[in-house]
Amino acid sequence: MSATTDKYAFGMIGLGVMGRSLLLNMADHGFAVAGHDKDAAKVASLNEEAGDRAAKGFGDVKEFIQSLTTPRAIMMLVPAGKIVDAVIEELTPLLEKGDILIDGGNSHFTDTNRRVEELEAKGLHFFGMGVSGGEEGARRGPSMMPGGDKQAYNVMKPIFEAIAAKVDGVPCVTYIGPGASGHFVKMVHNGIEYGIMQLIAETYEILKKGLKLSNDEIGKIFAEWNEGRLQSFLLDITKDIFKYKAPGTDHLLLDDIKDEARAKGTGKWTSQVAMDLQAPIPTVDTSVAMRDLSKYKQLREKAAALYAKDPIALDVDKTEFVAALEQAFYFTMIISYAQGMHLLSNASAEYKYDLHLGEIAKIWRGGCIIRSKFLNDIFKAYEKNAGLEHLLLDTNVEALVQGTVPGIRTVLSKTIAAGIAAPGYTASLSYFDAFRSARMPSNLIQAQRDYFGAHTYELIGKEGTFHTQWAPVS
Amino acid sequence: MSATTDKYAFGMIGLGVMGRSLLLNMADHGFAVAGHDKDAAKVASLNEEAGDRAAKGFGDVKEFIQSLTTPRAIMMLVPAGKIVDAVIEELTPLLEKGDILIDGGNSHFTDTNRRVEELEAKGLHFFGMGVSGGEEGARRGPSMMPGGDKQAYNVMKPIFEAIAAKVDGVPCVTYIGPGASGHFVKMVHNGIEYGIMQLIAETYEILKKGLKLSNDEIGKIFAEWNEGRLQSFLLDITKDIFKYKAPGTDHLLLDDIKDEARAKGTGKWTSQVAMDLQAPIPTVDTSVAMRDLSKYKQLREKAAALYAKDPIALDVDKTEFVAALEQAFYFTMIISYAQGMHLLSNASAEYKYDLHLGEIAKIWRGGCIIRSKFLNDIFKAYEKNAGLEHLLLDTNVEALVQGTVPGIRTVLSKTIAAGIAAPGYTASLSYFDAFRSARMPSNLIQAQRDYFGAHTYELIGKEGTFHTQWAPVS
Repeated sequence: MSATTDKYAFGMIGLGVMGRSLLLNMADHGFAVAGHDKDAAKVASLNEEAGDRAAKGFGDVKEFIQSLTTPRAIMMLVPAGKIVDAVIEELTPLLEKGDILIDGGNSHFTDTNRRVEELEAKGLHFFGMGVSGGEEGARRGPSMMPGGDKQAYNVMKPIFEAIAAKVDGVPCVTYIGPGASGHFVKMVHNGIEYGIMQLIAETYEILKKGLKLSNDEIGKIFAEWNEGRLQSFLLDITKDIFKYKAPGTDHLLLDDIKDEARAKGTGKWTSQVAMDLQAPIPTVDTSVAMRDLSKYKQLREKAAALYAKDPIALDVDKTEFVAALEQAFYFTMIISYAQGMHLLSNASAEYKYDLHLGEIAKIWRGGCIIRSKFLNDIFKAYEKNAGLEHLLLDTNVEALVQGTVPGIRTVLSKTIAAGIAAPGYTASLSYFDAFRSARMPSNLIQAQRDYFGAHTYELIGKEGTFHTQWAPVS
Repeated sequence: MSATTDKYAFGMIGLGVMGRSLLLNMADHGFAVAGHDKDAAKVASLNEEAGDRAAKGFGDVKEFIQSLTTPRAIMMLVPAGKIVDAVIEELTPLLEKGDILIDGGNSHFTDTNRRVEELEAKGLHFFGMGVSGGEEGARRGPSMMPGGDKQAYNVMKPIFEAIAAKVDGVPCVTYIGPGASGHFVKMVHNGIEYGIMQLIAETYEILKKGLKLSNDEIGKIFAEWNEGRLQSFLLDITKDIFKYKAPGTDHLLLDDIKDEARAKGTGKWTSQVAMDLQAPIPTVDTSVAMRDLSKYKQLREKAAALYAKDPIALDVDKTEFVAALEQAFYFTMIISYAQGMHLLSNASAEYKYDLHLGEIAKIWRGGCIIRSKFLNDIFKAYEKNAGLEHLLLDTNVEALVQGTVPGIRTVLSKTIAAGIAAPGYTASLSYFDAFRSARMPSNLIQAQRDYFGAHTYELIGKEGTFHTQWAPVS
């Protein structure tokens, strides 16, 4: 097909950064694509960037729909929530039975469940697909997590495999599972992303406030780490951030940015759902809490005036400490992924998603925000044992963890003594230390609950529940 | 009134431990009360325990309703969720306009909001009331948190003030605010309870695995602490638990109890809602995560086999370390309450509850599970300054915290090096250290989000949001 074609093989609703980039990516791979947005500027921007490619933007939704080959294949990339429902409501009268509708945004998986039912009832093929990679990923090769209508996905598969990121020639897209599993997996991806971003921020904090290093020195450490086993997209962009000067100045733009982190909510959703599933992911929880805490700037300034004495530089050998910190960061990164994978295996059982964790790790190795060298170790762990109950039980991962435990213990015993906040680091180590406890102190919690609320308790080696009148007879 | 009266001033639906105890408490204070339960055994049990008191149990709901003076005053104390709705559905056809219906259970505040609307539309006075104190509290004097229909509460006030716990003669009940505020405040109470229970369990862990103390020695430490500033209901019952021998044996029953803590969900709700309100309460979040982790017994045993080397006893002076631990526990307890109060002030603003935090602290001083000596300090802090933004900004609390910071730093730098899990302790200290940071490292998170997702960032001292092409031109 050429740019003058009358009919397009794929349509995109929502021509923001992600939608436009994905369309151009498709066009680059020889697919004729159409886009629609209510914002005329975004339509114009697509048409301008499209150049000779078979990609065309429409401001009118009906023209857009009519421009597509049937059965139609349309993806929405619009903000999650009510807007998705509004688009669906506007769209469905214009569609015909057998058309395929894809939600490529970050919809909450419970919304996707509902929409699957509503749209199936109308004879439409609907599926939710997580898309990760940001602007650059969408443009050059994202990681995609489609779930739901498998037949519809199979129709779309050639396009998605063509545009996906490739690792060793393998496209970073695979059918995830039934229902809203695609959006669920993308949500957990984002939860892990929150964790790793928080951990990088804490590393920066430790290097800056603990070792009193300059931005230049910190940037060099991130760049160096990114050449080794810590290699990851997030470290890669961090090293760039540590080189970017505020325009017209000699200092980093980073220093001018407010220390108040915003969030769109996918990390929060991950934590909330994990609590419903009783799958503990404290590193993600902490990352969510710290984004929230960052917003209380004025409170923090008041607290600093009361409580913050002159920050104490760590009394350590810098080279040795940075080596320990490299171990510590690797440790916490492993823990972040391990918590996420554990949450996925719980969700798979609870929602009957039949997730293949190895396949998920495989498609996360490229294109997405949490891609990293370590994801290949995760992939191998589940390839070796598809039924692996917890990533930390894989023997290769165990060896990696064992080698980093001394580092995290050294780093945190120092930062804690010095008063440097490292909430994600400590949450990760605490999780690990509790997880490797054959006996936790939770028996005391059972006893307390029974004492005050007659909630009963369970006994080792005995069936049933028991109640005791604990209070001493007075 | 006497036991032979035909009409009763108050009715209770649900004659479990809490309902029966509350009724008998009312009867002790001279109120004629009736109870109803579908379970005949529970009805019989009430009638047996009632003795000469003006308290009568009914198996038939209509007889129960007819036995009450009008306008009727009825409280439900049944498990939260669908059962509450089922009881309401059964009850409403039997009630008349102007009757008062109270939900005294642990309903989710969003359910209470819905029921307020539904029942108001039917002309009934409905309010939700949190009741804390467990069996003993309900029987001898609970702490009660009524919210919603103020007029209806005022009708009930004499009964509730009579049966409530008293501190310095002041009853532990007060009108909390509109809507579901009573249940909301009770939920947060339970969140704090989860936190403190987890912290006591971790203290037990540190004393047992770190200092290798015997149960007897541990029990003595808890008993001693409970005589000082740490005095609290939860430590009080803990010291009893450390005296209770498994029947017919010479060892503690505690040692026979499974280390798998159950939960009814109020702690989880608190964490989930706090995330919605963007009010960070990481100590509570961690407590929820650790209850969940405790359930993965088999996984933990496998992880222990891989990762747990012989536990290392702490190389410390025991007496000095226990003194530091006392400080550490006090510190974390203060942080738990501070997070809870901060959540309440956020909820008050968001839901327009107009909460009086001093009044809430006042009624928590007695009767409830989280009552403690320190609650009087909280009460005084808000009495001095009703608009106090955060408990840690009160100067008296600040002095207490400053005196305990060395202890928590000593304890955690040791436990972290030794590999003893103290997730609630570390979450509390990390929260504090982040909270007292005038500058957090969250600027890096803003930069990363803008780098990969064009999410824009904010600049210090400049209005608006900005976007940068961070990637180096290659």
